[in-house]
Order: sequence, then structure tokens, then C-alpha cells
Amino acid sequence: MNTFGNLFRLTSFGESHGAAIGGVIDGCPAGLEVDVNFIQAELNRRRPGQSKLTSPRDEKDKVEFLSGILDGVTLGTSIGFMVRNADQHSSDYNNLKDVFRPSHADYTYQTKYGVRDHRGGGRSSARETIARVVGGAFAKLLLKRLGITINAYVSRVGEVDLNKAYSCLDFSLTEQHPVRCPDLETAVLMEQRILEAAKAGDTVGGCVSCVIKGTPVGWGEPVFNKLHADLGHAMLGINAVKGFEYGSGFEGTRLSGSEHNDVFQLKDNKVVTKTNYSGGVQGGISNGEDIYFRVAFKPVATIFKEQETVNLQHDPTVIIPHGRHDACVLPRAVPIVEAMAALVLADHFLLNQTSRIENLL
Amino acid sequence: MNTFGNLFRLTSFGESHGAAIGGVIDGCPAGLEVDVNFIQAELNRRRPGQSKLTSPRDEKDKVEFLSGILDGVTLGTSIGFMVRNADQHSSDYNNLKDVFRPSHADYTYQTKYGVRDHRGGGRSSARETIARVVGGAFAKLLLKRLGITINAYVSRVGEVDLNKAYSCLDFSLTEQHPVRCPDLETAVLMEQRILEAAKAGDTVGGCVSCVIKGTPVGWGEPVFNKLHADLGHAMLGINAVKGFEYGSGFEGTRLSGSEHNDVFQLKDNKVVTKTNYSGGVQGGISNGEDIYFRVAFKPVATIFKEQETVNLQHDPTVIIPHGRHDACVLPRAVPIVEAMAALVLADHFLLNQTSRIENLL
Amino acid sequence: MNTFGNLFRLTSFGESHGAAIGGVIDGCPAGLEVDVNFIQAELNRRRPGQSKLTSPRDEKDKVEFLSGILDGVTLGTSIGFMVRNADQHSSDYNNLKDVFRPSHADYTYQTKYGVRDHRGGGRSSARETIARVVGGAFAKLLLKRLGITINAYVSRVGEVDLNKAYSCLDFSLTEQHPVRCPDLETAVLMEQRILEAAKAGDTVGGCVSCVIKGTPVGWGEPVFNKLHADLGHAMLGINAVKGFEYGSGFEGTRLSGSEHNDVFQLKDNKVVTKTNYSGGVQGGISNGEDIYFRVAFKPVATIFKEQETVNLQHDPTVIIPHGRHDACVLPRAVPIVEAMAALVLADHFLLNQTSRIENLL
Amino acid sequence: MNTFGNLFRLTSFGESHGAAIGGVIDGCPAGLEVDVNFIQAELNRRRPGQSKLTSPRDEKDKVEFLSGILDGVTLGTSIGFMVRNADQHSSDYNNLKDVFRPSHADYTYQTKYGVRDHRGGGRSSARETIARVVGGAFAKLLLKRLGITINAYVSRVGEVDLNKAYSCLDFSLTEQHPVRCPDLETAVLMEQRILEAAKAGDTVGGCVSCVIKGTPVGWGEPVFNKLHADLGHAMLGINAVKGFEYGSGFEGTRLSGSEHNDVFQLKDNKVVTKTNYSGGVQGGISNGEDIYFRVAFKPVATIFKEQETVNLQHDPTVIIPHGRHDACVLPRAVPIVEAMAALVLADHFLLNQTSRIENLL
Repeated sequence: MNTFGNLFRLTSFGESHGAAIGGVIDGCPAGLEVDVNFIQAELNRRRPGQSKLTSPRDEKDKVEFLSGILDGVTLGTSIGFMVRNADQHSSDYNNLKDVFRPSHADYTYQTKYGVRDHRGGGRSSARETIARVVGGAFAKLLLKRLGITINAYVSRVGEVDLNKAYSCLDFSLTEQHPVRCPDLETAVLMEQRILEAAKAGDTVGGCVSCVIKGTPVGWGEPVFNKLHADLGHAMLGINAVKGFEYGSGFEGTRLSGSEHNDVFQLKDNKVVTKTNYSGGVQGGISNGEDIYFRVAFKPVATIFKEQETVNLQHDPTVIIPHGRHDACVLPRAVPIVEAMAALVLADHFLLNQTSRIENLL
Repeated sequence: MNTFGNLFRLTSFGESHGAAIGGVIDGCPAGLEVDVNFIQAELNRRRPGQSKLTSPRDEKDKVEFLSGILDGVTLGTSIGFMVRNADQHSSDYNNLKDVFRPSHADYTYQTKYGVRDHRGGGRSSARETIARVVGGAFAKLLLKRLGITINAYVSRVGEVDLNKAYSCLDFSLTEQHPVRCPDLETAVLMEQRILEAAKAGDTVGGCVSCVIKGTPVGWGEPVFNKLHADLGHAMLGINAVKGFEYGSGFEGTRLSGSEHNDVFQLKDNKVVTKTNYSGGVQGGISNGEDIYFRVAFKPVATIFKEQETVNLQHDPTVIIPHGRHDACVLPRAVPIVEAMAALVLADHFLLNQTSRIENLL
Repeated sequence: MNTFGNLFRLTSFGESHGAAIGGVIDGCPAGLEVDVNFIQAELNRRRPGQSKLTSPRDEKDKVEFLSGILDGVTLGTSIGFMVRNADQHSSDYNNLKDVFRPSHADYTYQTKYGVRDHRGGGRSSARETIARVVGGAFAKLLLKRLGITINAYVSRVGEVDLNKAYSCLDFSLTEQHPVRCPDLETAVLMEQRILEAAKAGDTVGGCVSCVIKGTPVGWGEPVFNKLHADLGHAMLGINAVKGFEYGSGFEGTRLSGSEHNDVFQLKDNKVVTKTNYSGGVQGGISNGEDIYFRVAFKPVATIFKEQETVNLQHDPTVIIPHGRHDACVLPRAVPIVEAMAALVLADHFLLNQTSRIENLL
Repeated sequence: MNTFGNLFRLTSFGESHGAAIGGVIDGCPAGLEVDVNFIQAELNRRRPGQSKLTSPRDEKDKVEFLSGILDGVTLGTSIGFMVRNADQHSSDYNNLKDVFRPSHADYTYQTKYGVRDHRGGGRSSARETIARVVGGAFAKLLLKRLGITINAYVSRVGEVDLNKAYSCLDFSLTEQHPVRCPDLETAVLMEQRILEAAKAGDTVGGCVSCVIKGTPVGWGEPVFNKLHADLGHAMLGINAVKGFEYGSGFEGTRLSGSEHNDVFQLKDNKVVTKTNYSGGVQGGISNGEDIYFRVAFKPVATIFKEQETVNLQHDPTVIIPHGRHDACVLPRAVPIVEAMAALVLADHFLLNQTSRIENLL
């Protein structure tokens, strides 16, 4: 089950210390101009070693395209791609071969499959998200043609909370600071919090928020594949994610209906809503307003402290992980959240093409 | 896109004021004993008119099975079923034919499809969940054979919060009170809150929590279809849901890794975790601990107050909805949350059958 | 696995002697006018008891629609439908409860599922095709809007072969004779052959041919889901089908490449091919020429002669089937072949909407 | 739509003159020993340049595995692989850039996608089948563990027909002659026929037959995904295939039911059939007998003769193809037919795991 999407589909492969991470993008319409520099730039936002906040594993994460593109344009055929793994330090993991790291996937993989690649977490490593970022970059290129923008940013690190509505933020500043919070004062505090955790050999969690502007009315399949349900599915499939909420989210459930309803009105002869507690989705279908949601990331499970656990033989033991790890995944999660959002939207864009017969004749 | 699941699949149909709501259950293994009384009892938990807290629409919601069962046992073939709609008051909706109710699906359906069934919300009505409850009941019958139990309950209504860990609750009390909170003191407060909202012609939201016990280690597809991602997808596909979190959820992101990690230990020669911030899922795969999650439901959009809006011709207008509606969906959402959870688990149970070659020979 | 199609999907249910046969059509675009009389007429072409050539089981096969249609137009939501089984003579099958009829599905169902509905073949009965005909009728309504016609006909019964190219036939005559061969002289011979077999308590097989006119260039997914591969899949899924060939088929493999190639030329400024050995599909994609194919149907397995077999206890026994059966399925297979072809084409019509970005902007 | 299969899935990519052909195998159970030499040997049976009967394009077709395997065993994760294209002579195709070769996919790809890779046929090239052979090799490794064997062979070239039942053949001889017909006398005649065609700059078609032994009773999904329907789908998706028949096929439709029925009897306390017109499948489900089928391949469309056609601008023109091509695809089609059959069987093996509840408890 390594395929995501219905019409715009990403199939991915790759272990952290295997030969390569890669995938196949299927269903991307023909004739899309492929901006290779943009795709590589998206990967660079995800890659380790990009700042002092991220793992020092030195991966160039250079993507190679294997098919589906000619003369800078998609052919309508499947697009194969891969990123070679280069800077593996597999021996860092020798001592973990037979041990289950707490709150990692070691124990569950071992029990499910009877075998696992223990090196760097194998398939459960966040390196797997390389394929998501490449797939998402194609989706972004498609959505750009429709005037849709997707901006994610770090909105909380531990208790350091960006207490501002997204409408008060300037997303052009997000990439100005390695922590990827567009409010630079808060970004500095977040950075301190991360470095403090790192210094203590510990880790810290938080939230990423995401705002999508420009989605037309009508995207989303209204029963099981509501637009926000597919977005939630996409986000919850990212490593370390513990929760998803859109629009007014958990807090909105404290309001009464009369407070929460988004009244329709006209603006420049267009139907808009006065408020947007709905988060741009009503009945599972986009209503033309901004789509926004928030994603919870747990603190990284790899800490540099002694921890009790059990081993393959089910004997108690203790571990102190080696290896190179982020003290906080949030800054690098930003492009991943955007990529998954883009994949969902591109898929629903294509799905919506056939909703009305009058558009087909 | 009215199909849910990969191997254990539910395809559903039906509008609120159409002839029937129903569906097809496909992939249910042959030889499962079908307890029709249990299935009907699940529907009764969902149906309107069951208490003063719910819509007075008087629907018996009697399920009729059309195929796939013989002599009380599933045949392995697809199971068709339906529930006739009986007590429609379609004329209640005449005045809404050309008007978009705020925070409803009217505007988005109309724009997406160019046509809609305005009577009772059509396909966007919560009556659609009848099919989910029937499908979920089959999934529950299957999971029961494995010793798995699923218990949902109302954990918050507006600001009335059940501030107790699930381990302190006695789920056998949930059905004792129509509000479906197993803490009966809190249930009374919740009921008051709902009736107060109803009296004001207003509505109120809240949260449903759900606990799954007895899941073996190994269920879940670890990349895009992580067990919790599929649970989240299922929940976010239910009408009025705004958020999903599992295990430590949003609050857990405030902890450090050293606080949050679930240390493995042995108990009766079995690998268990000391804490369960992971919510029973690690790396997207069940680890044998309790699975628990929380779902946010917005306040019902239908309020009996005058509201501004626009109509089909994009002219401003005002509405006061008629019809029969719940002031709070939460009590009736409990069996729906359980049903969707059961469908996800049954599907992953079947998917997991083929994960290891040694189990296949 | 009772769902057919990718975007235009049919999910079906029903056993021969169960309560009903039915299904759910999903993905049909909104706004399609539903000609209920046409759909019922298609079912009437399939139903038993329509002529002396078909089983005397007297089923009106009246379709009831349960959802997805309002004021004669599709809503874009899933369309539930069913046909009640009425004239079952289940007791005819009492003696077959524990016996495996030769060349039937009794033994394989029993072994696969451990249980089966022996009455009238249960799910393996050709009554299951009712759902296909209803689904196909919607697909035909959609394709009609595009000017596409689908005409199947009986082209061989036993050794009675219609030795004429389809271009020499007048399809308006197909329904003039109950055998459904548009060449009425041949139809009479075919009828004699069928009645002769029936008189002998025996059965006879043959071929159905099908011609699709008006398909635009570009339909088909060129690797695994070539247009002809999906047509073949659809046909081979019909009961009693043993083979499928399209265009020049098996015979064409005897030609050399220079004889077989379809040279392109211009006609009225349109690209056409001089010959059409390709059968309207090149590289798995329609090329605008007529699509034509041929389907082989085995002789019906139910014969009214004593046959050796084994029973549930694996003891040798003999049977003489009772019940009501066609001596030849071909006349009633004609609307089924058309229905399945229509489902495939409608699906590929929708799939092709997203092949090029320039059509999406 | 470049994915094949439901549980055992192959997703493929690659153009003839692009960087690589490859794919992702998903759903292969963990713990399968990967015999890399066997996989490469299967590729060698498919590769060009293996004999004087095949295209002289000199491709080593060396497969590289990118993920999913550790210490010679599958991990249960997705298996990425690729074969670099090496010996492209892309300039051979310069003159074909704007021309539509007769009976090729040039015109249909161009019209569908608005763009195409004209070099070597791009995605429509038979080089695409490399991914099928690799995927099929994994499926074969799985099926071997169950004692299932799959043997395809060339049964007709033009008019040179192997007129022998498969039961009279010794499949160990198939690889003894480059034409891949196990009857060596017939093989010589076939070879002569192919060389004769090649000498004339022409091509020749024919048939491949395939026999599967050892399939247990119960595989196949009995409505739309009958085992033979999925086999037919798989075969018709191979380039140049024009027809598929299984068991008694088209010829069997000339028999009466009393001749054609396969009577059940006991042999060594096992239920078997006296004859096997059913081809090992009844009601869409395997019955334990040999599965056999026949596939029609048209003569290769690339001939070295002048042919009329039209160009991109829809002007008449003539072409004489250059490039390197087989005069007959049949010898190289043999491993491709086997690979696709293996993929279908492996998928149905996995699908059948969940058919009965008693096998799951």
C-alpha cells in the first residue's frame, strides 16, 4: 500500500540506508512544463544538513528523472524518479539491530513482517518523504497553473506558540528563517527552544499550519472522500503526526451554531462567506474560501538519553541511540505538509473534471 | 467516490428524502454469523426520535438485507441492504429549494453538480450514515470473533468536559444515558447544555472519544495508510467533523521526547509499553496497546434563528430553517464513530493477512 | 470484488433466489437525463420469458431506483437500484443442494467459501447480469450524448455462422428476430439450431459480435488498461465466455505485417485508416475508427441429461437437472455484451478528460 | 494507469529511449527469498540480441534493485527497480518525429496527449515489458513456493501450427530452441518462417500458449474479476495482442453442452474432472485442474517497406522505417506471457486469503 491518490497518484519506495528513495508519479496530465530547479529547491527545503537545526547527515538529495518527461514537458506517461542515498552511516545502527527503540517503528515492523531493515529506521525513516516532496512538487506545478498557492509554516514549537491568525502573516518571510515561522520574532524563540532541547539530548514537538488560497468552488467528493478528510488522511500519513484539524478545528466545537455559522454574502458579485470557520470546505467540497488546517507533530522519538526497552529476544535492555537526528522535525516538515496538500488538491482537481455532464460535452 | 475500504469495502447510496438509504458490503469473509438483532440495535442507536435529545423525525430505520446471507451466515458474496425512508416531510424544505443555508453543503453541491436534492440536505444529510452503521455492524461482528471491542462516548459538549482518562470509565454505562457519556454525572450536565441550546433555537458541538481494545500487533500499512491515518480519514469523512487526534494528540506535542516516549517492558512475558502516548500505533502499525482517539464535531449548522444568506440567483435573502433537527449531533455520532472505526480495523485485519510469507504457506 | 470500473463504477449484488439483484452506479456525471423507459427496455431484452428461445422463468425484472436521481436527472451522487426476484422456484434445486453440477460453479464456490447458495446457482447465476444491464444503460445514455452507438448481435450459433462483415449488416434488424442476428435468414437457421438442441435436452454455444461507432480518438490507457484489454476483461467477466478477440483477432495473426498494417490517409481532412485490422484501437488507444470485437460463449452447462458427478461428501452420484434454463445464452447475451462495452467506454471517456493539461485550464 | 494488480501490484515506468525502464512491486509478502539470478535470467529471455531471431539492439538489461530487499529477502516494503537504457540509437527515429507509422501508437498518443516521445515508440515500445518481466519474476518466486509452474510456448507462427495438445509436450525443451516452441521439429519450421519474413523486410504473427499447473481450488473473484477474466486482461494489455481464449476457447463453442461439460469424478480421493474444457476455471474460480490459454499476436507493425501515411500536419507522406526490430515478437513474448500470468495468479493467491472466516481465526 505504497500508492497515494486516485487520479494523480504517487507510488513510492525506499529505505533510509538502501540504494535509493524514489517513486512513480502517475496521472499527471501531459504538457505540463517541468521546472526541475523548482523541484530540486523543494527537496532542498526538506533535506538534512540545511541548517544547524537539522540533522547533519549530508545528503545532496539530487533527484534524477527516469521517464515521463521530454524536452521539459510531461508526456502523460508515468514519471519515474529517484534520489540516491549517499551519506549513510549504517554502522551507527549496528547496536540497534536487535533492539526496539521506544516509540519507534522497530517493534511493530519486526512483528508485522518478521524481518526489518534496522539501519536508520529503514522504510519508517523520514527519508521516505523525499518521494512525497517530489510528487508534491509536480502537483504544485499543476496547481500553480490554476493560481493556487499552498503555504505551510511552523506555528508552535513546544510551548512557543505563534498566536496570530494566518491572515496577519507574510508568507514570503517563512523561508527567511531556518525554523520556517514567518513571524521572525517568534521564529527566534522557537529556534532557542529547539537548540535548548538538542543541547539536553532531548527533542521537542509542535504544530505546522497550512493555508491554501485560490481553490475554486467544487473540489471534494462529498461522502467518504471529503476534501478535508483526504487532507487529514494525507497529513496523518506523515511520520510523527498525531492530529489534524481544519477551519475552526477543536476550538470551534466550543462555539454555538449561531456563532459558528459562516453567513453567505456577495462581494464583487461573488458569493463569499463573512467568516470562515468552515476552513474553506462545506459538505466536504471546497467553497472558494481559504482552506486552512493545523497538524500536530510529536517530539522526535530518538533522544540521546539512556532508555529502558526490550530486544528481539524479548529480554530487557537499555539503549542510547547514536546516529544523526533532528531535535525537532517541524522546520523540515513544512515542505512535506505542503507536498501532501498539493497531492490531495491535484487529485481532487482531476476528480472534479467529470462531476457535471455539461462540462464534458 | 462512495466506496470506503480496500478489502472490506462499503459502497453506499441514498438521499435523505429519496426512496432509501443503503449500500453494498463487499469483501466480508464467508461463514460469518450474522446477528440481525445486533445490526438493528446498532441502527437504533443512530436513529432519530430515540430520545428527547434527538430529532423527532420518526424513522424506524428497519434494515432489509437483499443478498449475501443465507441461513444466517455470510456467503462471501456482496451484501446488499437498504433502509426505506418513511417519515420525510419534504415540504418543510420547499422554502429552501433556491436558498443556500449557511455552513451547509447547499452552495457547494449546487456549484459542483449544477443540480441538487434540496430536501433534507439530500446526500449531505446525516441519514447517509445509516449505511455506515450497517457496514460497521458487520465489521464489528467480524472483530468480535477476534476479541476486539470498540467503545466510543461523548467526552465533551460545548464547554462541558469529561475530564477523565478513558481508563477510569465504565463503558457499560455509556448506553445508560441518552447523551452517551459513561460518566453519568457529566452526562446530566451535557444533557442540560444540549437542552439549553435547543431551547434557544441554537446548537452546540463537542467531542467524541473512542477506545479500541484487543487489536493484535501488526495491523496498519506503514506509509500512506498508517492505521491512525485511515482512522482519521474515516472520522473526518463523517458529517460535521472538524478534527482528529490519537494517542497524546495535540497536547502531546507540548511534551519533550524523553517525557513522551513509551518505554517497552515485559509483562507476563509479553512486550508492552509503560505509557501509551502512542495511542496503540507506532510507525503506523498497531503495537498491541489500546488504540484511542478523539473526534471534534462542530455545532449543527441548522439553527432556528434568522440568518442572512444568498439564493440561487445570487441575491441576498434571509432564512429561518424549518424541519426537524438535533441541537447536538454528539449522542447519535457515537455509533457512527464506532462503525467507521470498525470498518477501518476490519479492512486492516484483512490487509494484514498477506504481510508475511510464512503465514501463507 | 464486485465493483467494475475506475471512474464510472458499478458495484453489484444479488443471488438468483435471494431477495433482489441490484447495484450502485457511482461516478455518473450530474445532469444526465435518465430515460427510465430505455433502461427498462434494456432489461426486457435481457429478461427470461421473452421468447420461446429463453428460459420460461417469468420475471418482470422491473427496476426500482433508490437514489441518485431527481426530476429525471442524475444528481452526481451514487445511484442505488434493485430488481426484486419474484418467480423463484427454489424447490427445483432441493436435489442439488449437496451435488456439484458439471461445468458449473458449485464445486469451486463451495471449496472457496465453505458455503454456497445452491438455489439457481446463487451468485453465479446469470441473473447477476441484471445489474450489468442497468449500469450499462446509464453508460449508454451518457455515450448517446456523444453520438456513440454500440451494437452487438449473435454471429454464430454452434456451426451456424453468419459469414458477413459487420459493414454489410443492418443493425436495426437485430431486434426483429428473437435470436438477435440482424441477418434474418441466418437468424432462422440459428433459431432452428437452438430449438433442436433444446428438444434434445442439450445446449449449444456460439459467438456474439459487437461494433462501436463514433468513439473519438484518444480513449484508452496505454499500458495495462489498453482500451481493448479493458473490453476483453469486461467480456471475459460475463458468465460462459471463453474467448475474446478484437479487430483482425486470431485470424489476423496469419497475415504478414505488410498485409495487416492499416495505412493512414485523409478523408474530408480527417485522418482515417484505409483498412481497419486494428479494430479501432492502436497502442491501446482508440483511433477514431469503428471498434469491433467478438466474444465466444460456451454451450450452457445445464443439460437435461443424466450426468455423473460427485457430491459434497465426495461420493460419486448422478444428476438430472430440473429448473428452467436456456438451451442457448446467446440471444440474451447480446444486451449484456453491449452493457459491459458501454461501461468500459464510459469509464474511459471520463478517464480521458484529464490526459492533457491544455484541456483543463 | 500504470499500475497492475490489487494486492500484488506492479507500477511501471519508462520510455524506450529514456533514461531507464523500471517499476515498483508492492504487496509482495515479507520473507520471500529473492533469487536475483533467476530474475536476471527471466530478463535475459526477454532481451533483444539474444539470437538471430530478435532485434540486434544490444541491451544487457541488467536489473538494479533500489529498495525492499535486505540480505536476499523481501522486507514487505515496496521494491523499486530499474534497467538503464543503454544502446539507444535515437537518431534512427529523427525522420519519424512528425510522421505517424501505420498500425503503431504514434497517431493515438499524439492525439491523446498532444505530445509524444517518438524515439523508439516511447512508452508504447515493447521495452516497457521489462518491468512486467521483473514483477512477474517475483510473482513466480512466490508461486514456486506453492508448487505452481507456468509454461508458455510459441504454438503458431503465421501458418506454421504446432498441432499438439499441451499434454504431449515436454516443456523442458522450450528453451532449447530460440523460437521457444518445445516441439523442436516445428520450431525449425517456425524459425524458417520468421527468417523468410525478415528477409522480405516483412513480419509475421502467431500464437503463444500457456499452461499453469498446480493452482489450488478457490482462486478467482467470481463476478467481474473471474480468474480467466483477469488473465485475459493481463494478456490483452501486452503489446500486439489481438485475442485471448482459455480452455476450449472459440472452438469449444461449436460443441454441445453434453460434449463440453467436464464431469466430476474421484481420483485418489480427490475431486477431479474427466475432461478439462473448462481450462481449470469454473464460475471464475480455479478448480484445481490445469489452467491453459492461448494468446494471439499480430504481425509486428514495423516493416522495412515503403508505406503511405500522414504526418503531424495531416499531409500525406511515405515512410520506410529504420531502427532495429524483430520480424516476429513471439519468441520474446513467451516470458512476458508467463510474467503477466504469474502476476495475476500471485494477486489472486493473496486475494483468496480472506475468503473464509474459518481460515482467519
